[in-house]
Amino acid sequence: MAISISVAVRLADVERAATRLAGVAHRTPVIRSRTLDERVGAEVTLKAEGLQRSGSFKFRGAYNAVSTLTGAAAIDGVCAASSGNHAQALALAARLCRVRAAILMPHDAPASKRAATEAHGAEVIAFDRYVDDREQLQAQLAAERGLQVVHPYDEPLVMAGAGTAALELLEDGGELDVLLVPVGGGGLIAGCATAVKALAPVTRVVGVEPQASDDVARSKAAGRRQRVAVAATIADGQQLPTPGQRTWPVIDALVDDVVTVSDEQIVAAMVFLFERLKVVVEPSGASALAALLAGAVPPGRRVGVVLSGANIDVARFAALVTGARGGRSPG
Amino acid sequence: MAISISVAVRLADVERAATRLAGVAHRTPVIRSRTLDERVGAEVTLKAEGLQRSGSFKFRGAYNAVSTLTGAAAIDGVCAASSGNHAQALALAARLCRVRAAILMPHDAPASKRAATEAHGAEVIAFDRYVDDREQLQAQLAAERGLQVVHPYDEPLVMAGAGTAALELLEDGGELDVLLVPVGGGGLIAGCATAVKALAPVTRVVGVEPQASDDVARSKAAGRRQRVAVAATIADGQQLPTPGQRTWPVIDALVDDVVTVSDEQIVAAMVFLFERLKVVVEPSGASALAALLAGAVPPGRRVGVVLSGANIDVARFAALVTGARGGRSPG
Repeated sequence: MAISISVAVRLADVERAATRLAGVAHRTPVIRSRTLDERVGAEVTLKAEGLQRSGSFKFRGAYNAVSTLTGAAAIDGVCAASSGNHAQALALAARLCRVRAAILMPHDAPASKRAATEAHGAEVIAFDRYVDDREQLQAQLAAERGLQVVHPYDEPLVMAGAGTAALELLEDGGELDVLLVPVGGGGLIAGCATAVKALAPVTRVVGVEPQASDDVARSKAAGRRQRVAVAATIADGQQLPTPGQRTWPVIDALVDDVVTVSDEQIVAAMVFLFERLKVVVEPSGASALAALLAGAVPPGRRVGVVLSGANIDVARFAALVTGARGGRSPG
Repeated sequence: MAISISVAVRLADVERAATRLAGVAHRTPVIRSRTLDERVGAEVTLKAEGLQRSGSFKFRGAYNAVSTLTGAAAIDGVCAASSGNHAQALALAARLCRVRAAILMPHDAPASKRAATEAHGAEVIAFDRYVDDREQLQAQLAAERGLQVVHPYDEPLVMAGAGTAALELLEDGGELDVLLVPVGGGGLIAGCATAVKALAPVTRVVGVEPQASDDVARSKAAGRRQRVAVAATIADGQQLPTPGQRTWPVIDALVDDVVTVSDEQIVAAMVFLFERLKVVVEPSGASALAALLAGAVPPGRRVGVVLSGANIDVARFAALVTGARGGRSPG
């Protein structure tokens, strides 16, 4: 019996995404630091995706999806359920492609994220994250209004777009022994692993999750998708109970390892980035560097790290770095 | 009777400094932001000197001076009195030039700044800023140990080094209608104005001071050096009572205007830089952008802004942005 392996995304998809994003997305800088290299005993190249449009890597996938969908067929617009960076990214991508966007956001989402989403012209529809079923609401909204759902991670075009970050990191930063990538739903690492394993197969790809939401680490250990009860963590972009249906087969096949970090380790990485490298990174965005600083990864000589996003307001940053309780988001 | 004008620094000095700094100092990035341009109605180019080695533009002047002095004559080392960015910059420059550095620091200087200075191998000697005469202590130290004093701003080699920031800004950012530069002792603006007025005479050069220490603005208004009583301000890099003896003639001749900003306007600029541009800037470093955001400068179409430094720890940043009293330094 032949085994059929369904691969959602290939290098050619990432390369096509790169073509679509050229001149639209920022080619974010790679950052090097003597201080960091001395601290961890490796040559580290950081990919600063917090400097991407909309403040995170999410713009890459959102724009790749929206521009392809609207290019292929006349659609009335796009929608998604997201409380975070995908909401802002999709709103911006839709504005640039001149289609409507409707975003389902939990009614307790941060006011700043709602405001940023609306500032791009999207309609925000509130739901109760503790009562409503967001997948059902999303399907209903899409059907009623003829909108195309753009899933935050479990969508091949979104994964391929995210993978362009790794493509640029390899082009601008040179060869790597290991690449560290934050993992939430798995779209970023699926796209990045696809690019890296095709272009530089010897490079190890390691995912980093918060301890409070270690579903991908457990799934890797078990060899199949696991579901966990997500505990409270400051890494709000990585609070997911199970890997995506479409991201999981890619992670299963291409990611070498997944490690976890504590909230304290994430804050330490954010402080290091602020005080030594002078860059702002949100908790989820700092998780991969946190693993490196904490020694959770046996470092190769040349280490790439994706800093995936930087959407955090000063009040929350202040609360986190001073240890105030207000900084912790509910799980 | 011929009028003799003593000019401490010329374009050729800035260009020689650029040659000395090539491959040693970072060529810091210029940053552009659609959000910022829309906010102020101009095309803004930011020069991110907080990403310079030692965390501020001060490395440019310190290295230019130390490398020239040690190249010209065998000296036993360098010294300076500084509680701030010049201390760290001089310590690093001395280490790179393999000479000793002794830094007089007030005993109440922030522990982090003292630690950073010592980390570069400098000897730190504490003095009482309320009792001791720092100029006298510095002269005594230099004489006793055969050290060369490298003044933080009132030294032509230091001014010329600082001017390389403007040289790069013009090269990388293109033509400017106005350039905004933070002013403390005046070394940065003297060097920048020298470069800009030689290469692009139509570009207006405008200095920005904290309201609490408006000695240069008053001196410009009066046409001669004025001395003020410095009040409390968060902009600790700009707390000087009078322009330098050597920087003043350059400022008098080449700077078009000097405007002032409040501490509240500086904090607003720091928050904008953090939340929208994702970069860390210390209070003094944000003062020029504060003036632009506050509308204190009639903007030209193309505005350059020097963000001069980023040495601030997370605790002080948190205190400043949340309005806690701990964030204000004594005057």
